[in-house]
This record gives sequence, C-alpha cells and structure tokens, in this order.
Amino acid sequence: MAGSTYGMIFKITTWGESHGKGIGVVIDGCPAGLLLEREDIQKFLDRRKPGQDRYSTKRREGDAVEILSGVFEGYTTGTPIALMIRNTDQRSEDYNKIADYYRPGHADYTYDEKYGFRDYRGGGRSSGRETAGRVAAGAIASKLLKELGVTLTTYVRSIGPVSIETFHPEEINRNSLNMPDAAAAERASEYLEDCLRKQDSSGGCIECIVHGLPSGVGDPVFEKLDANLAKALMSIGAVKAIEIGDGKEVSVTTGSHNNDAFVGENGEVRKKTNHAGGILGGISDGSDLILRASFKPTPSIFTTQQTVNSKGDNIEINIKGRHDPVIVPRAVVVVESMTAVTLIDSLMTGMSCRLSNLKKIWN
Amino acid sequence: MAGSTYGMIFKITTWGESHGKGIGVVIDGCPAGLLLEREDIQKFLDRRKPGQDRYSTKRREGDAVEILSGVFEGYTTGTPIALMIRNTDQRSEDYNKIADYYRPGHADYTYDEKYGFRDYRGGGRSSGRETAGRVAAGAIASKLLKELGVTLTTYVRSIGPVSIETFHPEEINRNSLNMPDAAAAERASEYLEDCLRKQDSSGGCIECIVHGLPSGVGDPVFEKLDANLAKALMSIGAVKAIEIGDGKEVSVTTGSHNNDAFVGENGEVRKKTNHAGGILGGISDGSDLILRASFKPTPSIFTTQQTVNSKGDNIEINIKGRHDPVIVPRAVVVVESMTAVTLIDSLMTGMSCRLSNLKKIWN
Amino acid sequence: MAGSTYGMIFKITTWGESHGKGIGVVIDGCPAGLLLEREDIQKFLDRRKPGQDRYSTKRREGDAVEILSGVFEGYTTGTPIALMIRNTDQRSEDYNKIADYYRPGHADYTYDEKYGFRDYRGGGRSSGRETAGRVAAGAIASKLLKELGVTLTTYVRSIGPVSIETFHPEEINRNSLNMPDAAAAERASEYLEDCLRKQDSSGGCIECIVHGLPSGVGDPVFEKLDANLAKALMSIGAVKAIEIGDGKEVSVTTGSHNNDAFVGENGEVRKKTNHAGGILGGISDGSDLILRASFKPTPSIFTTQQTVNSKGDNIEINIKGRHDPVIVPRAVVVVESMTAVTLIDSLMTGMSCRLSNLKKIWN
Amino acid sequence: MAGSTYGMIFKITTWGESHGKGIGVVIDGCPAGLLLEREDIQKFLDRRKPGQDRYSTKRREGDAVEILSGVFEGYTTGTPIALMIRNTDQRSEDYNKIADYYRPGHADYTYDEKYGFRDYRGGGRSSGRETAGRVAAGAIASKLLKELGVTLTTYVRSIGPVSIETFHPEEINRNSLNMPDAAAAERASEYLEDCLRKQDSSGGCIECIVHGLPSGVGDPVFEKLDANLAKALMSIGAVKAIEIGDGKEVSVTTGSHNNDAFVGENGEVRKKTNHAGGILGGISDGSDLILRASFKPTPSIFTTQQTVNSKGDNIEINIKGRHDPVIVPRAVVVVESMTAVTLIDSLMTGMSCRLSNLKKIWN
Repeated sequence: MAGSTYGMIFKITTWGESHGKGIGVVIDGCPAGLLLEREDIQKFLDRRKPGQDRYSTKRREGDAVEILSGVFEGYTTGTPIALMIRNTDQRSEDYNKIADYYRPGHADYTYDEKYGFRDYRGGGRSSGRETAGRVAAGAIASKLLKELGVTLTTYVRSIGPVSIETFHPEEINRNSLNMPDAAAAERASEYLEDCLRKQDSSGGCIECIVHGLPSGVGDPVFEKLDANLAKALMSIGAVKAIEIGDGKEVSVTTGSHNNDAFVGENGEVRKKTNHAGGILGGISDGSDLILRASFKPTPSIFTTQQTVNSKGDNIEINIKGRHDPVIVPRAVVVVESMTAVTLIDSLMTGMSCRLSNLKKIWN
Repeated sequence: MAGSTYGMIFKITTWGESHGKGIGVVIDGCPAGLLLEREDIQKFLDRRKPGQDRYSTKRREGDAVEILSGVFEGYTTGTPIALMIRNTDQRSEDYNKIADYYRPGHADYTYDEKYGFRDYRGGGRSSGRETAGRVAAGAIASKLLKELGVTLTTYVRSIGPVSIETFHPEEINRNSLNMPDAAAAERASEYLEDCLRKQDSSGGCIECIVHGLPSGVGDPVFEKLDANLAKALMSIGAVKAIEIGDGKEVSVTTGSHNNDAFVGENGEVRKKTNHAGGILGGISDGSDLILRASFKPTPSIFTTQQTVNSKGDNIEINIKGRHDPVIVPRAVVVVESMTAVTLIDSLMTGMSCRLSNLKKIWN
Repeated sequence: MAGSTYGMIFKITTWGESHGKGIGVVIDGCPAGLLLEREDIQKFLDRRKPGQDRYSTKRREGDAVEILSGVFEGYTTGTPIALMIRNTDQRSEDYNKIADYYRPGHADYTYDEKYGFRDYRGGGRSSGRETAGRVAAGAIASKLLKELGVTLTTYVRSIGPVSIETFHPEEINRNSLNMPDAAAAERASEYLEDCLRKQDSSGGCIECIVHGLPSGVGDPVFEKLDANLAKALMSIGAVKAIEIGDGKEVSVTTGSHNNDAFVGENGEVRKKTNHAGGILGGISDGSDLILRASFKPTPSIFTTQQTVNSKGDNIEINIKGRHDPVIVPRAVVVVESMTAVTLIDSLMTGMSCRLSNLKKIWN
Repeated sequence: MAGSTYGMIFKITTWGESHGKGIGVVIDGCPAGLLLEREDIQKFLDRRKPGQDRYSTKRREGDAVEILSGVFEGYTTGTPIALMIRNTDQRSEDYNKIADYYRPGHADYTYDEKYGFRDYRGGGRSSGRETAGRVAAGAIASKLLKELGVTLTTYVRSIGPVSIETFHPEEINRNSLNMPDAAAAERASEYLEDCLRKQDSSGGCIECIVHGLPSGVGDPVFEKLDANLAKALMSIGAVKAIEIGDGKEVSVTTGSHNNDAFVGENGEVRKKTNHAGGILGGISDGSDLILRASFKPTPSIFTTQQTVNSKGDNIEINIKGRHDPVIVPRAVVVVESMTAVTLIDSLMTGMSCRLSNLKKIWN
C-alpha cells in the first residue's frame, strides 16, 4: 500500500532511505501566493540536524535542501513543491553487519516479514532520517499557519524521569535539550550522561501548544481534529502514546473537575479552564490546542543484546554506529511539523463547511 | 468536509443523529463470500445498548438492526452492506432547553461555531449514539478477522481510580462493568455509587488485546498500523489518550529495558517480552497487539454548572435527561469495533505488498 | 474494493440492489445552511422514474424518497444526509431463470467472475436502478450549484440515427424523449416503434451544458475537471464514450480552427468560440461546459440470443421481464446528477487554491 | 487541491515544470520484489523524447532518469520509488513574451484565473513535459503487468483525416508516427507536411489494446474499470474524447448488433465479438480491452492569432518557440503509461474482492 502520502488537500509525499541517494518530499496542494524561500525550509531542517550536541548521533549531514519545483519568482504557484536533500555522510559499512540479524526495537524484522527482504543500510526507509521530508513540509505548513495567525510552541516536557517544573518559552532554544526550564534541562543532562555511561538510552515526552487556531476546525465523526493529530503524531517512529489536553489523567478524574465551564467575556465565548486541550467533539473550540507524544528510548544501545539472525539462530549482538542516547530533542521539530501539516490540511478541507463560505469564494 | 467515512478498502460510512429517524452505516468493500446473519450484528449492538445496568442511561432503544443490502442467500456479495437502526425511544422534549445554551464538555459550542447552527436534540450527530453505526460495522469486521484467525479481547482496565489487579478473561462478560477482575469490578461499583450520590461522573480506561494477527500488517511511513489505530480510537467521542504497548511509560524507561529481545523457537522468531505492543516500525510483528484508550468522565452531570447561553449571557444550568455516570463499559464494544475495522482494512490494503502476492491472486 | 463512494469533499455513497429492500445514498460533506425539502429530491427522482412512457420499463416504483438524517428545521446541518427509497414493485420471479445463464451485454458474467456468485435478481447491484441513489444526490448538488449561480441543461441529442437539428430548451420537458427539438423527437419515436417491432433496442447520446460556472475550477494534473467529469459519466452503466466540447471531432481538425481566440469585452476576457467546451488545461475558463455521453442500446432485448449457462453449455435464450427499448431519456437526469456532483465537489475542493482564499474564510 | 497524485494503492505523484529544475515522480505502493533497472524506465522515456522526427519540437532533452530511492540490490523494496529527470535544454527567453498574454488553446488564462499568477515559462506545470513523470511511472506499471501476463499495444490510429486501414503491430515502431499501417503513415506524413506549410497543426487518435487482463478487474459502481481509464486518459493534456470498445458508435446501433454473444469453448467462457471492448458492468470480462483517446491539434501554431493581453487589450500574436505540428505520436507512450498505471492499481485494489483471496495471502 502507498503509505508515504499524508493529507487530503495539503498533501505531502515523502521518499528516501537512510543510506540511499537522498531524502525528499513533494508538497502538493499548497495554496498559491505564499512567499517561500529556501531559508524558510532550511531553518526547520537545521532544528532536527544530527550532530548538534553530545547526545545526538555523530553523523554530520549538511541537510541542504533544494527546491526543485512549485515556486516562481519567490511565490508558491499552487503546483507541487518538490524538495530534495542529498545524503552525503553515509557510512554504510557500519551497517553491513546488521544485514544478517534483527536489531531489537527496530523494524528490521517486520520489514523482512512484510516485504521478503529489506534495505538494511541504516534502517533504510524505517530510519529516523525519513522525518527530514516531514520537517521540510512542516516548514511550509508552519509558514501558511503563521499567515492565518496560528503559531506553535513545541518543547521537551520530560526526558526519562526528569520533567519540567517551570515554563519559560524563551528557554526552549537556549538549551540543546529544548526544554522550557533551564534547571530541568540541567538535570536531564546529568541523567543522559548516566545513560551514556551505562551504554543505555532514554525516552521522553514532547508537548506542542497551538495558539490562535480558530474554532470550527475538524470534522465529525472520523475526521475529528484530535483523531487526525493522533494519527499524525503516532506515525512518528518512536511514539507510543498520544494525549490531548489532560490526556491520560482524564481516566481517573470526575466530570465536575474535567468539564471546562464556558464564560462570556466582551461578547466572546471563552472557557475558564482547558482540560479538553482545545478540542470538543473533534472540533477546535478556539482555545489553545495541547498535544503530547511519548517517545520510547532509542533502540540502538551499545550494551550486549540477545536476538536472532536471519537463519533463525539465537545470537548476541553489540550494535556499533552513530546513535543518539536520546532522540527526543531532535524530534521536537518533527512533532511540530506533523502538527502543522495536519492543521493546515484541516483548515483547507474545512473551508466548505457552510454554504455561505462557498459564496464568499465563488461568487 | 466528508468526515463520516472511514477506511480505504473496507470502507464504512455512518449517518444519523441521536433524535433523528435512525442511525445507520454503509459497509463498502466487504469481501464476497462471508456468511452473515442479522444476529451477528445484533449481538454486537446489544453489547453497547443503553439501559443494561444502573450506571447507564435509562433510554431503552431496541436497537434492532435491519440489513438493507449487500447480502444474498446468506452471504455477502462484495457490494455495499447498508444497515439501519430506527430510533424509537427519543424524548426530544428533554432537550428543548439545551437549544439555548452550551453544555460544558459537549460539542454544542463547537458545532455552532463550525456550522452556524446545530441539531441540539440529544447532541445530534455528536451524540454517543452515533457509535451504533460503528459497532454494526465492527461486527462484520470482527467476523472477517475470525475467518483469518484473528480475535480481539477488550475490557475495562480501570474506572476512576480503580484498576484491575488480576486478569480473568472469562470475567469480562460476567460483570456489568466488563472488567476481567471481579473484585475490581466490585470496588468500581462502589466508586460509581459514590459518583451518583455526588451527581458526578467518572472516566476510565479500556484495553484491547489482538491475538493471531500475522506479522507484516501496516505500512510505512504515514499508514503505520499504530497510527491508524490511534486515529480510529481517538475518533471515539470521549477518548483523550491512546497508548500502544507500554504506552506512556516508555517516556520514563531506558532502552535496555524497553527493547524486546528476539528469540528463535522451533524455526519461528518470537519476542521474549512485548513492551512494543506487537508493532515495530508501524508494522505488526506477530505478537499480541496491545492498545489502550483513556476516556474522560461523562460531561453530562447533574450538579449545577456555569456556562454561556446563545446570547452570550453567563448562566447557571442543571442538566436533566438520561445520562450514564460512566460510559466506559458501554464503550468497550466501540473500541473493539474500531480496532477490528482498522485491522481488516489494513489486512486488505496490505495484500499487494509483494509481487508474489499479486501472482497468487491474479495468475 | 470500496467502489460505491464518489467525491472527495462532497462525498456520496450509494447502496442497494434492484430487488433488495431498497436503494439509498449517504451524502456526506454537504455544506450546512442549504434549505432542503423532500420535494427537491423527489422531483429529480421522478425524472428517472420508470413507466412514464411506452419506451420505458413497465415496472412502477413510487420511488418515494425518505430523508433519514442531516436536515434539521429544514436546513442541512453539515452532517451526513441519508436518503432511502424502498423497493416496492419487485417481481423477482421474472428473474429466476437468469440465475443460470449469462445475459449478453449485462454484467452477470463479470460479477460471477469477480465475486464467485451474484445476486441475479434484476441484475442486483449492476441494475440501472442503482442510479436512483446518484440522482437523489444530484438533486442536492444541483440545488447547491444553483445557489452559486450554476445551472445545467441536459437533454437527448440523438436516439439511434436521429439527431436533433434545432435547439429549443423549453421543448426538453415537453416530449417524453427529452429532446430539445420536437420534430426530431417525433422521428425518434418512429424509430423506437420500429425497434419495438423488431424486438430490438436503441442507443443514443446525451448532452449536458453547464452555465455560469466560474473560471478556475479543476486541478492540474490528474484532477482536471474534464478528467473527473469523464470518470463520473463513464461510471454510468451503459456509457461507452465521453466527449468534451468538440469531442471526437478534434482529432480530424486543425489548430487554426480548433483554437478559441480570446477577446476582451468590457474588461472581461471572453472566447470568440467554444470548441474547448469550457475547459483549458483541465480548468474551467468561464464559458459554458459542454459534455456528451454516448449510451449503448439496452442489452435486454426480446429476440433470441446465444449465450452460455453456468455449466458452460452453449444455449439460446429469450429474455422476459420489463425492459426499456431505450434508456437514454431516463438517463438524462443521471448525467445531470453526476455532472452536478462532480462540479460541486470540484468547487469545494478548489476553495483553497489561493492563500488569499484561506484568509477570507479563516481570518 | 492536490491534483498531482494518482492511484489508490499504486500511487504516483508527479512534480515539475517545463522550465524549472526538472521533472519527477514518486511511485508509492509498488510491490516489493520487482527487478527494476534504470534502463527499464529510460526506454519508456525515450519513446516520448522530443526531437526524434521533423514533426516534433526541436527541444533536445536527454531525459536521463535517475532512480533516487526504493530500489535495493536491483529489486523494488515496497517503499517509494523517486525518479528525477533534470531539465537541461530550457530556452526560457523564448517564452518571456508570453508572460503578458494568453495563448489560445493553452492553459495560460485558466492558471491565471485559478492561482492569480502563473509560471509562464513554456507553460509551466501545464506543459506536455509534465507527462515525463507519468511515463516513468508507466514503465514500472508495465513491467509489473508483464509479470502478470498483461501486455499493451498502443498506436496512432489516425492523424487528421488519415486513418489506418490495416493493422500490422510490427509496423508501429518502424515509422516515426507510430502507425500500424505503413501506407497510412506515408499519407499522414504528407498531411503533416501540408500542415507545416500552412503553419498549422493536426489532431489525431490513439488506440490502446490490452491483452491478457484477467476477468474480474474493476469495481462497481463508481470505480468501474472504464470510469477510471476514462479519467486517466482524459487527464492527458490535449485529450477531448474517450471511447471504450465501439465507443461513440454504440449510440447509433441496436442491441441485437451491439450485444456480444457468450460461447463456451473447452470449458472457458468466451465472447463471439467484442463490441464492449472487454468491459461489462465496469468489470473486465477477460477479452481484450480496447480504448481510444482523441487528441486536439497542438494549440501552438505559427499563424497570427487573436487574443487578449494581461491588461485586457485585444492583440494579435505570432507564437515562436519549438512546437510539434502534431503531438499524437509522442503521446502514444503517455496513453500506454496511464493505462498501465490504472490497470495495476485496479489489480492491486481488487485483490480483496473475495474472502478466499484474503485467506490465500494471510493464512
């Protein structure tokens, strides 16, 4: 099945493997008239670039993006925008060994089971490198959202057992862990040093807050905004849980606490609280969206692991290569990108919800 | 946007409002040759029928399903199966009052914002009654899965603060709360009695285990099996969090604990543990799927609440009507249905993943 | 595969067989705020109702449509509109014989090959009766188009060798053959009488003219407006050719004749001619759309025919039952409906083609 | 709207403009295990390459294709195959003039109306050069079909008034007009010389015959095989009419002539004739598919034409540049490609039509 296309009206199609010729994305359905420069996209890509701190892989890709189509005289034309990033720092020889066995926690085994064989170099298509295409698309989606007054703030909420305790948005880009709490970032660093010493890795949680989203976005009953966001975020490799608003906490609370009371203020309807995370009945309610994604620890660890080789023998392995002890900080921009792409697609598909809207455009 | 259709090859389209003429679903793409009787579907619907215990709404719908098309001489024909359930016990007068204000925690406000007005009777399309169509479709999906050796076990894992501590699958249908632990069900009942006394409501968590799913189901990169399951479950009204396998716990654990070691047994590849919940890289790995959905407390509570009326005035309301202090037990079959529909669609779309499969069918 | 759903944003799903319990359609994605009465739909259905003249089947269905959902206090709510027509005048016994053989020109054989068996009663799902669902949806699409100033004129252009020679739109509904030329209708009637005498049937051609469609509708490169219209019309049972504008004639002409010169008139861009039929590069150009569909003769004829039975024996058959010697006049409203549904879906999907449009709706 | 993606399971996404950096396509959903070499694709591209005879544009693109992803050790992996062709011989200066006016018969005006401005260089996205991406995808689809025993024969049936009178398939590639009748090709050449002298251009008709397609392909009611083929072919720039089997002729014939009698031969069901062109009720019947597409004359002609400039002034223009007096011979491989892509997608989506098929793959 064709699983590399996402979105209905704002549609992105990614391609590429970790150690192939490159990584790319085609963004189709981007409205005409958006000022778009290579730098808009490069900035986003740089946020997920490896090799920026001691906790991320030492692979050093320039990740220089090329705009191949869809932009004319600086503006999007409404036709497909093809973007490509050539792979440059592939050391495939590091991976030759993994051709013969299944790395625990990776997709080696399931790709083999599905397709009969696999491009084993660096995980092939299942590599986190695939997300570069998503981020390039996310840059464009974010720029469109900004034109509509919608902005996103995304950050690391926890790494292993270390959670943020304060929220200073200006801190997010000041520490390499992208946490809005400098002290927590400090403690998380210590925790990661400990992981490194133990040849182990850590999970973590990313939160995304969306400001300025109009009410009325999302469609009953299967295309609910939260349903599409859950799919978008769960499609990121290492994510194992998605929460909206109070998330998992709602299961242990009561209606009297969880309901957000409406209040009228200067003719506007507001909510006193936002346990719902900005979505009621699958439709945005005009307050901030609140999303969380929990990431599993990087499966590539350097301690000895048990597994099976392709002949079915039980073996012990020691993974080599360049791997992040934590991928969460680099994944912040991936979460932001998938959220942005989902939101702009929902805004575009939802334009026809009222007959009066059709008249505004077509009369 | 058309949000009432779900699935690509096995496609379901639901329709109907809480207090309209009925609720229905069209299942298109069901393979020909499945023995299907009205009773197969009715049994599923009966599992979500209201009025079965003192914690669910007193509305008493017969929920008698009619098969309108797509079955001939007892077998599915491959053409659309239309199913309809007439509404019979609507007391719309109960709802006339809510025409004028927005109930906290409900979709009244967001529907108004999106569409300019709403069918306010019983929540209209945003009512939980909409899920009857999903369940009818789920009955067919489940029967197809059973033909392929795939079965689902779904149950209430927790209600409010009360979680199961033992797992006895045969208990699930013996208590009205659908918990696989009789003692926990007892404690949960006491908790719900307390909620009733306080005119309050409770959330809870549902877990679904899928046995017998072959490896190789799910598609990289956006159509991952877990991504589609997350969308499917998050599209159920009150769900605010989705977890796969260890779920949210992965964020606080380490790679050495979270990785599932592969082991060879009699020529088969197995995993020693199943933290991953049966999915690696978005593709099923042949072990049990493990899914969890957290439900918020029923928003319709009988204590006085603050809200806004349609003129924007701040008012206090006391909701009347027939409402469940907890919807979780009735939602078990909804979770099972959405999971089943998603799985059968993934199995069908995935048939073409290898050239040799095409040859098996078309040569 | 799920083939009974059509459209992306304005999405219709039809169900039902010729001799099942009924025929229905779910229209999802209809904008909220359209005044819609049962009579709007019934009028359209009455245009395809059998038994209106001596050239159409003697089956007499009331074809009374019921609105089951999606309309509240007279207006569409934006949620799925379910429509149903109960079958009433089925004489299935007429069809018992055809269970055992394949009628030439019908889909009996191909359904058996695809699905392994078939609902043979009246052709089951492959019956022309399936189009009732399309027409019900077309009524709603037409009403939406009218709100946007778009109207359709559809008529029989030829029956067998008899073509119209004049065009008087007011004639279309005055003769039972729906031809805009009374004299041609007269001659066509004589031709059909001759067909009846010979126990034979006739083909014909339907033309649809769309007035008032704005320029800019349709999307490069695969979702061209003409491409979608071609699919829509070719999906009608008996259609074997589709033409846009000058259609097939373009293959024998030259560029200097076929190019439509642009002219400026009062600040508007017009075309001196309309060989293109209102579409350039797959996008509407603001002039009339011109579409034609050629229909094959009704395959159910009463002369003796050769065929094969289900055992593979060569046999001779004489079809009984109630069949039209020409279906073209009844198909006029089907062509109009499929055109209308396609146009409204294109208008809705195209609302996001410019960034300024998004701002008009969402700011 | 995102119009550059085609197909559901075998999904192609094209990108690129006539005078941008290149043209490309992503093929997603190609089954794993197909042996695929660059040369397989290059051969197809060479069939549409410009500059091969005196009737096609003098632009000389190497059209060298690069495989960027999705192939590993010579075989497709099941993941997206990205193909790119760099543009090399763009002479954009030829087109600067057309920035200011609308060429008759081209999409300049409609793109401006839709998007507010356009990439005018060589027609931008609306250029025939866009079809290179389709052809690259078609090469892969054709190779898959061949593995299933399905082959296509495509040729020019007529150019202007000159039609083939004999059918010698081995002739098709012997003359530069791709006609299966050497004498007709001779006469067509003379006709084209005449067009050149008159600074005019010619239309023509292409026919495609599909051999070996199994019965049972195509889905009722909207995803009929002929409906999808009609869309596929009508999406090719200059096509204005589509015919299946006897096509437009069916409108003037009778049922007794048009019905194809079934005959049993050695336990197989065959048809005595093939007026239907291999499709009954939208489903393949096991006989040859017969498709025809009528192409309009190239709109770029060198005689003086009337048009309007962007200020709305009526002007006269003389188009310069490199243009084909007939595009039909080069379009043969485009028709074949779109047919092949549609067929392989239909074969793949149709694998689940029977429950027994699911068991063949998943048990």
